[in-house]
Amino acid sequence: MTAEQPAEQVPSALDDPVYRPAVIDLLGVLAYGELTAFERFVMDATMAPTVDDKAALDALAVNEFHHFERLRDRLQLLGVDPVSAMEPFRTAFDAFHEHTAPSDWLEGLVKAYVGDGIATDFYREVAAYVDADTRALVLEVLENSGQAEFIVDRVRKAIEEDQRIGGRLALWGRRLVGEAWSQAQRVAADRDALTALLVGGVDRPGMDLAAIGRMFARLTEMHTQRMTALGLQA
Amino acid sequence: MTAEQPAEQVPSALDDPVYRPAVIDLLGVLAYGELTAFERFVMDATMAPTVDDKAALDALAVNEFHHFERLRDRLQLLGVDPVSAMEPFRTAFDAFHEHTAPSDWLEGLVKAYVGDGIATDFYREVAAYVDADTRALVLEVLENSGQAEFIVDRVRKAIEEDQRIGGRLALWGRRLVGEAWSQAQRVAADRDALTALLVGGVDRPGMDLAAIGRMFARLTEMHTQRMTALGLQA
Repeated sequence: MTAEQPAEQVPSALDDPVYRPAVIDLLGVLAYGELTAFERFVMDATMAPTVDDKAALDALAVNEFHHFERLRDRLQLLGVDPVSAMEPFRTAFDAFHEHTAPSDWLEGLVKAYVGDGIATDFYREVAAYVDADTRALVLEVLENSGQAEFIVDRVRKAIEEDQRIGGRLALWGRRLVGEAWSQAQRVAADRDALTALLVGGVDRPGMDLAAIGRMFARLTEMHTQRMTALGLQA
Repeated sequence: MTAEQPAEQVPSALDDPVYRPAVIDLLGVLAYGELTAFERFVMDATMAPTVDDKAALDALAVNEFHHFERLRDRLQLLGVDPVSAMEPFRTAFDAFHEHTAPSDWLEGLVKAYVGDGIATDFYREVAAYVDADTRALVLEVLENSGQAEFIVDRVRKAIEEDQRIGGRLALWGRRLVGEAWSQAQRVAADRDALTALLVGGVDRPGMDLAAIGRMFARLTEMHTQRMTALGLQA
């Protein structure tokens, strides 16, 4: 869709030499995140107990792939090579997935739900600080397609059948959050432009320390709600 | 799309107790084939040398998944559980993929192109023997989206750079065909209804032995053309 938009309609905010790299970083990190999520979900789907379950997780994965396509198209529209834009985030995402390879179907489901949830909440916060066009695209690709409801259903049923599963998956959820924060900090430390979107730069306002604290409190609260939805202790 | 069609519009040919199981088999074998192709292509895409190549094979895979969804929807429209319809073909497809796991990116590309090509040609032949609605769906999901052109490009370039690759991939192509025929024979022996679509039944005409011979000649010819397109000896 955006590919049809002529290049001269690119919002002028993107001519700002400080703002432009930040938006490219944001689109790049989202694009690589969607692409790796797609790939991992499909692999995790091979552990599905039934073909129906497999197809449900695959459908979720395919949804992520279409988001990747939208972000890649936007990067191209901005005259940016999508691969270069994604490259800076490769190490962090690859490390995250390497350290959180699910050992079974249920761990895969919890990872898809919890990992995707934290990422979505965080990018929504960031979206408040970008131009309207970028924000619309970011919110669009973060839209919950509702497909994740089957995850809640499957995890709750498994715990009902065997309470011990709940304890194991709760630990797993904590490990996922720990890895996610640790990789996010790595990205924040590396990518000044992206970080400046949130905390502001020399000539732009941003969140102060207290506001950042409140953002983390919101993210933690929403994570806890997701764990509760799954029947797990955060 | 078909999901919107009310159930009473299901073509009456599908009330025929001999024809109906044949069509269910056909949709089932296609659906399971698309689902496994999707999964395998995504796994093979992890061996891609660049993110662009990975995304190109992933896009091809996602296309197959959408075909799977169309076939699954049609089965549901016919009042058939898609999983039961796919089940009879599980062993053959799983064995095919197990025996033809690519050891590198180029083998994965050749498999996607050659394997998909043979299957497509064969199902097109079968499509001549089904009702108009089923035929339209079968031809739609077999439509070449043109995404496969990048495969021809990548394989030819690799052979240009190193001639020995051509010899290895030619052998690989022959192995793929051998496995495909061996699994197809297994399916044909098991599934009388599906086989009867081609060879006819007690009250239906079909291909005679000579016609079947000509069909195999056509399939072989088209396979040879594909291998030539890749720069490989069939």
